[in-house]
Amino acid sequence: MISRDECVARDAGDELAALRREFTLDAGILYLDGNSLGPVSEAVRVRVNETIDQEWAKGLVRSWNEAGWMAAPTRLGDRLAPLIGAQPGEVLVADTLTFMLAKLIGAALDQRPDRHVVLTDVANFHSDIYIVQAMANRAGRPITVKPIDRATLDDELNGEVALVMLTHVDYRTGEMLDMKGITTKVHAVGALVLWDFAHSAGAVPLDVTDADVDFAAGCGYKYLNGGPGAPAFMYIRSSWQGVLENPLPGWLGHARPFDFELDYEPAKGMQAFVTSSPSIIALAALDGALDVWDHASMSQVRAKSLAMTDLFIALIDQRLEGVFEVVTPRDHAKRGSQVALRHAEGYGVVQALIERGVIGDFRAPDICRFGFTPLYLRYVDVFDAVEHIVQVMTSEVYRDPRFAVRNPVT
Amino acid sequence: MISRDECVARDAGDELAALRREFTLDAGILYLDGNSLGPVSEAVRVRVNETIDQEWAKGLVRSWNEAGWMAAPTRLGDRLAPLIGAQPGEVLVADTLTFMLAKLIGAALDQRPDRHVVLTDVANFHSDIYIVQAMANRAGRPITVKPIDRATLDDELNGEVALVMLTHVDYRTGEMLDMKGITTKVHAVGALVLWDFAHSAGAVPLDVTDADVDFAAGCGYKYLNGGPGAPAFMYIRSSWQGVLENPLPGWLGHARPFDFELDYEPAKGMQAFVTSSPSIIALAALDGALDVWDHASMSQVRAKSLAMTDLFIALIDQRLEGVFEVVTPRDHAKRGSQVALRHAEGYGVVQALIERGVIGDFRAPDICRFGFTPLYLRYVDVFDAVEHIVQVMTSEVYRDPRFAVRNPVT
Repeated sequence: MISRDECVARDAGDELAALRREFTLDAGILYLDGNSLGPVSEAVRVRVNETIDQEWAKGLVRSWNEAGWMAAPTRLGDRLAPLIGAQPGEVLVADTLTFMLAKLIGAALDQRPDRHVVLTDVANFHSDIYIVQAMANRAGRPITVKPIDRATLDDELNGEVALVMLTHVDYRTGEMLDMKGITTKVHAVGALVLWDFAHSAGAVPLDVTDADVDFAAGCGYKYLNGGPGAPAFMYIRSSWQGVLENPLPGWLGHARPFDFELDYEPAKGMQAFVTSSPSIIALAALDGALDVWDHASMSQVRAKSLAMTDLFIALIDQRLEGVFEVVTPRDHAKRGSQVALRHAEGYGVVQALIERGVIGDFRAPDICRFGFTPLYLRYVDVFDAVEHIVQVMTSEVYRDPRFAVRNPVT
Repeated sequence: MISRDECVARDAGDELAALRREFTLDAGILYLDGNSLGPVSEAVRVRVNETIDQEWAKGLVRSWNEAGWMAAPTRLGDRLAPLIGAQPGEVLVADTLTFMLAKLIGAALDQRPDRHVVLTDVANFHSDIYIVQAMANRAGRPITVKPIDRATLDDELNGEVALVMLTHVDYRTGEMLDMKGITTKVHAVGALVLWDFAHSAGAVPLDVTDADVDFAAGCGYKYLNGGPGAPAFMYIRSSWQGVLENPLPGWLGHARPFDFELDYEPAKGMQAFVTSSPSIIALAALDGALDVWDHASMSQVRAKSLAMTDLFIALIDQRLEGVFEVVTPRDHAKRGSQVALRHAEGYGVVQALIERGVIGDFRAPDICRFGFTPLYLRYVDVFDAVEHIVQVMTSEVYRDPRFAVRNPVT
């Protein structure tokens, strides 16, 4: 049996341990939902208030130039680029993930005008499926969107496929896909690939350059801790820039936005994919949140993430054998930074844990989802969380009638 | 000649005067650019920091329910509705203006499948023209977008027109259009109307209900003072709700977002036009900014706005006769809340004024634009601004070589 003392000892030797101090975390809360919404770091407060009190209050409209607001989407993109293995000038931060996907899907379909099939994963986050269908409907030609079982991808890939849109880490199961291997197969049939990094950026090492990825997008509020509804990011490989056209253009993506020209002429590089001015305060929050990455490498984060998920799975195996199905792959190469446990009464389990201050989340129909975020979680938190899970399961409190009716928005 | 003392006296009798204290305004700055970016109010700071320190830091992911984040776009929409004459349940706050327009244009074109012309004003803000063209390109049928001289609208209206998209107050000239009269004409030929309220909301009285407007959208960062890149708003008349379909759908607009269904089923009402979660911090800033409207009516604001623009025009007439062309209509019924002065060397004039702390802006090719915002400007500010303009023009400092090269982003 793994003991609590062993976990305390591992924390003492953890080279990322000091970063926890950057975050606001209430005593008594074990926060295993940073894969849904990351917590506040002190640098967020500083940057947001500096933006309000100095840049906005003092600089007023002049700050579009003088405080660099115009360049914020590309500057933040360059800041984020190393986390996904991108080069400077290949990443943009703005909008929300769905709009970023909309722009990339529309643009990608325009580049394969003779093809009429889009493949996506039936297990994809539903919003991704809605927007790919919506943009396919507006491609100017008949397009069939096929949500497939990803295990059948090889059978579905052929010369009719224009685009393959996949999520790199499954939001329910936590399974991580082989980005490079799949990208190579997609390219082999002449199709393009768009990866959703919602559960990958800041969670697992990514190398879009090595994998030769065409396009990617992700959100800023999960493992990047940019705040609720934080701006999203998009990646466009440099070789596509100047070729790919923004299907939802706006004045800030114009080559000369202040010439007020009637004809749209795209700016160079990623700026062409800026539509209109994103919230500068929201960008400032994400900017502050990225500070912590100046003190942590993705390889350190990955090593601790795997150690924590290994620990969690081992404790569940040891203490609750047969109670849950561990849905997340045990193979490191296939694991993101969360662990999903299947249980028929999963909703009650998650709610009973939240009452005790152990915050995970429920994903219908039967997944209890726990995110492990190495920047601020300790090994001892993993141990204590499992202790709570054991108590909830042995007491059967999760069967309490107050958990019988599901809150529609949890 | 109007004297400075007369202006001081008018301020003493101004029933909106006390609201100025809510805003952060540096001494020595005369801010006549609130029609581009409004200043910070104290309530913005309070709401933003409350959102970060309480809702986000303490509530974490639970705040999507417990702090009402899920409902924030519709709640803020209801708060904003009275400013445009809308009913509760007809306004939504999220995204940016261009995305709001994209959704409304796409949805409107779907409602007139047998028509193939869109009319818009050639003097419209260029971003509006780019997005209407982009959405027309993706309408699924050939559509011709015609940017017309608005004076010729009557000649262009016919049974082929699907949609007319106009900006209610011209961003360059400050001319206000007859919303009700034009809407009636558009409806008479069976077309739909989409009004852009970027320079209208919080600036002039609006009554979308009385004018029977179909759709409208506007931004939060000008007269509403929501901060740089603040979320935008959209209006959909209640009779269109449940009929109009969001062309850029996302999970937060689904009837059951947490059931993760593969098929999109729109939520009821305006919620169907939410795509994905907007920045909650950005929404909080706008929420705080709207507090001031609890203490000011649009009729008070309009009366003071007209008095200020009348004063400005009278002073320019008296002191700088023949130097500028006053482009903004002198007729109150056609005037927004800004005054545009035409001058061949307008760029230098605006830059020389900014050096003196009088902040207006330049709109190519020759417009010096000054916004008058009754919530925080005084009559004496108008007087002092004109004094600076007189000094700039008589000294000819605007011809200084340092103003010869235009900064591309001012």
